[in-house]
Amino acid sequence: MGSEERDGRRQRASTPQQPPLPATLAEFAELARERLDPGTFGYYAGGAGAEITLRDNEAAWARLRLRPRMLVDVSRRDTSTTFLGQRLAHPICVAPTAFHRLAHPDGEKATAAGAARAQAPLCLSTLATARPSEIAEAAPEATRWFQVYVFRDRGVTRALCEEAAASGFSALFLTVDVPYFGRRERDLRTGFALPALEVPSLAAAVGESDARLDMRAIGELLDASLTWRDLEELVGTSDLPVVVKGVLTAEDARRAIASGAAAVVVSNHGGRQLDGVRAAADALPEVVEEVGEEVDVLVDGGIRRGTDVLKALALGARAVLVGRPVLWGLAVAGAAGVERVLRLLIDEFDLSLALCGVPRACDLGTSVLERSLHGPSAVGRESGTF
Amino acid sequence: MGSEERDGRRQRASTPQQPPLPATLAEFAELARERLDPGTFGYYAGGAGAEITLRDNEAAWARLRLRPRMLVDVSRRDTSTTFLGQRLAHPICVAPTAFHRLAHPDGEKATAAGAARAQAPLCLSTLATARPSEIAEAAPEATRWFQVYVFRDRGVTRALCEEAAASGFSALFLTVDVPYFGRRERDLRTGFALPALEVPSLAAAVGESDARLDMRAIGELLDASLTWRDLEELVGTSDLPVVVKGVLTAEDARRAIASGAAAVVVSNHGGRQLDGVRAAADALPEVVEEVGEEVDVLVDGGIRRGTDVLKALALGARAVLVGRPVLWGLAVAGAAGVERVLRLLIDEFDLSLALCGVPRACDLGTSVLERSLHGPSAVGRESGTF
Amino acid sequence: MGSEERDGRRQRASTPQQPPLPATLAEFAELARERLDPGTFGYYAGGAGAEITLRDNEAAWARLRLRPRMLVDVSRRDTSTTFLGQRLAHPICVAPTAFHRLAHPDGEKATAAGAARAQAPLCLSTLATARPSEIAEAAPEATRWFQVYVFRDRGVTRALCEEAAASGFSALFLTVDVPYFGRRERDLRTGFALPALEVPSLAAAVGESDARLDMRAIGELLDASLTWRDLEELVGTSDLPVVVKGVLTAEDARRAIASGAAAVVVSNHGGRQLDGVRAAADALPEVVEEVGEEVDVLVDGGIRRGTDVLKALALGARAVLVGRPVLWGLAVAGAAGVERVLRLLIDEFDLSLALCGVPRACDLGTSVLERSLHGPSAVGRESGTF
Amino acid sequence: MGSEERDGRRQRASTPQQPPLPATLAEFAELARERLDPGTFGYYAGGAGAEITLRDNEAAWARLRLRPRMLVDVSRRDTSTTFLGQRLAHPICVAPTAFHRLAHPDGEKATAAGAARAQAPLCLSTLATARPSEIAEAAPEATRWFQVYVFRDRGVTRALCEEAAASGFSALFLTVDVPYFGRRERDLRTGFALPALEVPSLAAAVGESDARLDMRAIGELLDASLTWRDLEELVGTSDLPVVVKGVLTAEDARRAIASGAAAVVVSNHGGRQLDGVRAAADALPEVVEEVGEEVDVLVDGGIRRGTDVLKALALGARAVLVGRPVLWGLAVAGAAGVERVLRLLIDEFDLSLALCGVPRACDLGTSVLERSLHGPSAVGRESGTF
Repeated sequence: MGSEERDGRRQRASTPQQPPLPATLAEFAELARERLDPGTFGYYAGGAGAEITLRDNEAAWARLRLRPRMLVDVSRRDTSTTFLGQRLAHPICVAPTAFHRLAHPDGEKATAAGAARAQAPLCLSTLATARPSEIAEAAPEATRWFQVYVFRDRGVTRALCEEAAASGFSALFLTVDVPYFGRRERDLRTGFALPALEVPSLAAAVGESDARLDMRAIGELLDASLTWRDLEELVGTSDLPVVVKGVLTAEDARRAIASGAAAVVVSNHGGRQLDGVRAAADALPEVVEEVGEEVDVLVDGGIRRGTDVLKALALGARAVLVGRPVLWGLAVAGAAGVERVLRLLIDEFDLSLALCGVPRACDLGTSVLERSLHGPSAVGRESGTF
Repeated sequence: MGSEERDGRRQRASTPQQPPLPATLAEFAELARERLDPGTFGYYAGGAGAEITLRDNEAAWARLRLRPRMLVDVSRRDTSTTFLGQRLAHPICVAPTAFHRLAHPDGEKATAAGAARAQAPLCLSTLATARPSEIAEAAPEATRWFQVYVFRDRGVTRALCEEAAASGFSALFLTVDVPYFGRRERDLRTGFALPALEVPSLAAAVGESDARLDMRAIGELLDASLTWRDLEELVGTSDLPVVVKGVLTAEDARRAIASGAAAVVVSNHGGRQLDGVRAAADALPEVVEEVGEEVDVLVDGGIRRGTDVLKALALGARAVLVGRPVLWGLAVAGAAGVERVLRLLIDEFDLSLALCGVPRACDLGTSVLERSLHGPSAVGRESGTF
Repeated sequence: MGSEERDGRRQRASTPQQPPLPATLAEFAELARERLDPGTFGYYAGGAGAEITLRDNEAAWARLRLRPRMLVDVSRRDTSTTFLGQRLAHPICVAPTAFHRLAHPDGEKATAAGAARAQAPLCLSTLATARPSEIAEAAPEATRWFQVYVFRDRGVTRALCEEAAASGFSALFLTVDVPYFGRRERDLRTGFALPALEVPSLAAAVGESDARLDMRAIGELLDASLTWRDLEELVGTSDLPVVVKGVLTAEDARRAIASGAAAVVVSNHGGRQLDGVRAAADALPEVVEEVGEEVDVLVDGGIRRGTDVLKALALGARAVLVGRPVLWGLAVAGAAGVERVLRLLIDEFDLSLALCGVPRACDLGTSVLERSLHGPSAVGRESGTF
Repeated sequence: MGSEERDGRRQRASTPQQPPLPATLAEFAELARERLDPGTFGYYAGGAGAEITLRDNEAAWARLRLRPRMLVDVSRRDTSTTFLGQRLAHPICVAPTAFHRLAHPDGEKATAAGAARAQAPLCLSTLATARPSEIAEAAPEATRWFQVYVFRDRGVTRALCEEAAASGFSALFLTVDVPYFGRRERDLRTGFALPALEVPSLAAAVGESDARLDMRAIGELLDASLTWRDLEELVGTSDLPVVVKGVLTAEDARRAIASGAAAVVVSNHGGRQLDGVRAAADALPEVVEEVGEEVDVLVDGGIRRGTDVLKALALGARAVLVGRPVLWGLAVAGAAGVERVLRLLIDEFDLSLALCGVPRACDLGTSVLERSLHGPSAVGRESGTF
């Protein structure tokens, strides 16, 4: 589907008969829950185990409180940041997530189009239902990165990376926290099974174009024996900078840099891998302290508000990756939904720069933060806040 | 409407047929929720974003625990305090809030009358639905302050300030935390839109007497480029002392004083501007430590109990501003409701002085306080407290 | 009603047709809630203001965790303690609470009888619906103390104390935290009004035997100008030791001892006076540290479990006072209910001595305690504890 | 019933008509709740008093957060550990719990069979509804330990231990935290009464083969005067190593070792004895620090996840004991259910080793842990996690 046709549909989507797009990410999530079948919604929404880390990812951002400054001229803001030497219009990027055609028939192409309209870099998953070259065609203007899962069959991985490089993707994001998939109990409860989907990487890995795989079978295609040496090899053989995604400790951040990583992403895979690992916001400071002066640090996990973005940058991140909310936007309204979700975050971030008295994102620092012992109060003191 | 007529109605309101006024602020809030349409109630009740700060404002006062002293002669209490050299009968003041005619047809005039009867200073909002001169006429005996939003058209602001000064208002409260309005999601959910309202300041700012504006349009009239220099200029050109409202850090408090502020108000705008900023009670100590020996410090945000007032004064504030509860009083019973809400707080404050063993408000200090790690328990241990 | 008749009824109460008495204090509270009218239940159950302190009293005991010791011979326990040089069979005493005829027609006489059977000292309230002499007659074998409110008309107080002394009461407990009654909002909500009740002290204070008073009127009879000098005077003129009830700080404990107090009770009046004051369990350590080597320290507030009693003694209290649970016992089954409630606590305390490995109550110390940052979990991690 | 017959039934249980076994422990608990009568379920599920410790046991594991390491070759894991010099295939053992015929007609024999199939050591309770020799016959290949309650009639205890030793049980676990049974209020509420059950130990203790006993009567058979000397005596007279189960302090751990214990189990008896004692996870570190270099330390209480097992080993435990979940497995599907519950834990543990980057259980240490002030968030910030 070309971009014209998509634009046509978007236009129809915004005719008066259509309900307007939500104005908050929570409403996008609610609408997505209504539209998707429970299995698919649960696959995206869920985390590993008891979902302690899933919830803590969000709570940890909320535990950080802001110390805003006043009477700064904030009539002009600069939300831009840099990553790998490139200027980004704003620090909100699309995290790599799998199988976008589960959420919308246009899949990753719609995501990429929406991201491009919002000037948001897009990180395409190895488990995408579109090829890197298709994404490049769908969103030629977008900054594109390619997320790498290393298959046991290294040829498959190599071919995908080469296609990404040839298609103008500008960095590889090596995911290091999935030797095996985490145990996602929502999927067990809903009985979620992947429907028949064209997943180019998997077709290549199993050597059959119409292989229908379950998550267990997919997991078995991945290489659980990966080590830092494999990172070094990837760095050595790739023309693209390699970013290590999934670091939660200073030790691993140091190791990644020593092995040639161009940047690191502090991430616990959205709470989907090992339940009970620390929240991303709690791991970020030690990583920034260890390697922040040498390389760029990104973070993902629980970013749901413009103020979360601001807090991440104040802690030293260059940018953030956003996963589930983008999927909710995609499920609700395709490319237009993705764009809207991103714009909501961008606008909130822009407003929070103004209200924090730090008009330039690059000037954010820890002086605007305060760590609180207290998470958000569940309720007001008596009969609700009044 | 003259004060006589209003008194007449108040009398009618207290005839046996009328339900008696509530005895707690929580009940006022509940009644107001019933009486106001959901959009208006939400506009007043809501905060920015996820309302973390809105709730934390209340919770932070509750986290402070009291260490009361016994066997002090408390048969006579002195609730009085001073502000800008003036004696106040008690430390409970009416915070500036917008558009009182949304809550009651008599609007700010009723608020002012109720405040005057409770001997509570009133801070009139720039976004009032009455002129400063009308308020002076409605409540000539009240201590009146004027809250200043700086319009891009400085002439409008100047004219309002001059009218306030000429009408016997005794201080200007420059709000410094609204370069833009915060994002209040309750309004998005309810679809709240300002009805047609006469707002003298806005009419002047747009040059049309019957302009109907939405919050976005109003926000665009404000000057987001305001800096400390503008404060200096206001201080230089105004005959009235200028109080800076919206300070949350020691740094800004110092800067405000250096720029000529006569006092500061520790405030996060009732949690309506930037969600996630620290609670007012959490910011107050560092501001008092920084400038409390040089100028008067006020505080607002989450004050719902006489003990909250006591805690604020014990932390070094001279007085507190109360916003939403006054609006609930206004919505429920006009001037009589405002008076009642204020008297409930005053009486609770007076009683808490007695029960704390500190009969004179001016003797309050941190020795009566203890910071607890524990907010109020949501429930008793088992089946509720017994 | 003589003790024989009461015993007769108790026997009837325990015939098979009667439902058996509850086995937990929570069930007593639940039954009392069913039996009493909502106003009376609320009067007893409620606290001041938002009931933060009411709930925190219970939560604070729960925040203390136990470090039990094993393989101690606990086949024989000694629950006894001493107070004012007297041996008590166990440390659980009946707190002074008002108007027992609200809970049961036999009023304080039933309470005293139940307490006597459980070998629990009883502290009779000034606001009792029975005279000290009647209580002495109803429970001659019980250890009896008399709680003193000082009326403006000192003659009334003096006469009551003299009657108590003459009736074999062995100590006066001067309540120091009620210059005025706290604001109990449950009573405002339920519209609770005291029914016609014979209250000997009040009849004397107003000089009319059938005066029907409300709480406000009663409050006005009390002397809010009481100071440490009045304590000194009471100590000087009374033949009985004077215990100061209502101390929450080391400073006041020191002052009480300096003024001649024979002991102090750490208490916040069951959370009924000033909401937001620290929990009794949180105040106890500093009081024990200040005066525990010189005088006996008691504590009340939130004691609902035998382990709470153990924790109180481990923190240095000689004994505890129990209020509301005794009233629930009284409401449910008169003297038998009181006895049962007390025995449940005594038995739990006895068992907790065994399970803590400290068979003698007098050997309890802080080594069995650990302060936890974590109150009781509201729920298990997922679908409840399993 | 021989093993063949049992296998036959298991096969029938796994025919397609049968519902499949649950995939999570929470579901096992839910199914067990449905299948067992409320009294029996409550007897197993409940704890002492207000169940603070019961819930805290689970919460305390959740308060520990993980710091996982990446890019370690985890394609092969080694879950094995050692205990008393013996290699265990994995660290998940079956805790001693009473009366398995309450849960399933096959009782402990089914438990033992399921444990054996999962290569899990089994600790048989003194209060088992099967003799040690029967268990040896039912699960000859299993590692078997015998839990010892010391009866007042020491001959009974001695005979049981000798039977255990003769039947190939390889260690005695002396339970030291039950001089008396804790007060389990769920049983009081449900009116739980033990049905007629053949309990060989009790029959021996009372000298009647068909004695029907209640928990109180059973408690009275136990010796509450037990001391460390009795441990020394047991150590001296037994050919088997003696493990002390129920230690919660460094002091008692030291004392146990000094008295000849071969190992200790940090345990609060699943929160069933003294409510308010510290969580097992909170007590473990000080015990490991005190004696961990000299003897093996086990832990039980609140282990519900493979990550809880990993955390226990990271804190220095050699293995963990699992109680209630095994009973749920037994209640739901006999031996097959026990096996399944254990395998779920083993598989989760194995996966968590991989995802933590520590492929060998013996390499776990505190560097993978972080103590958090924050338990699991009850909810996401707004309308649930999204």
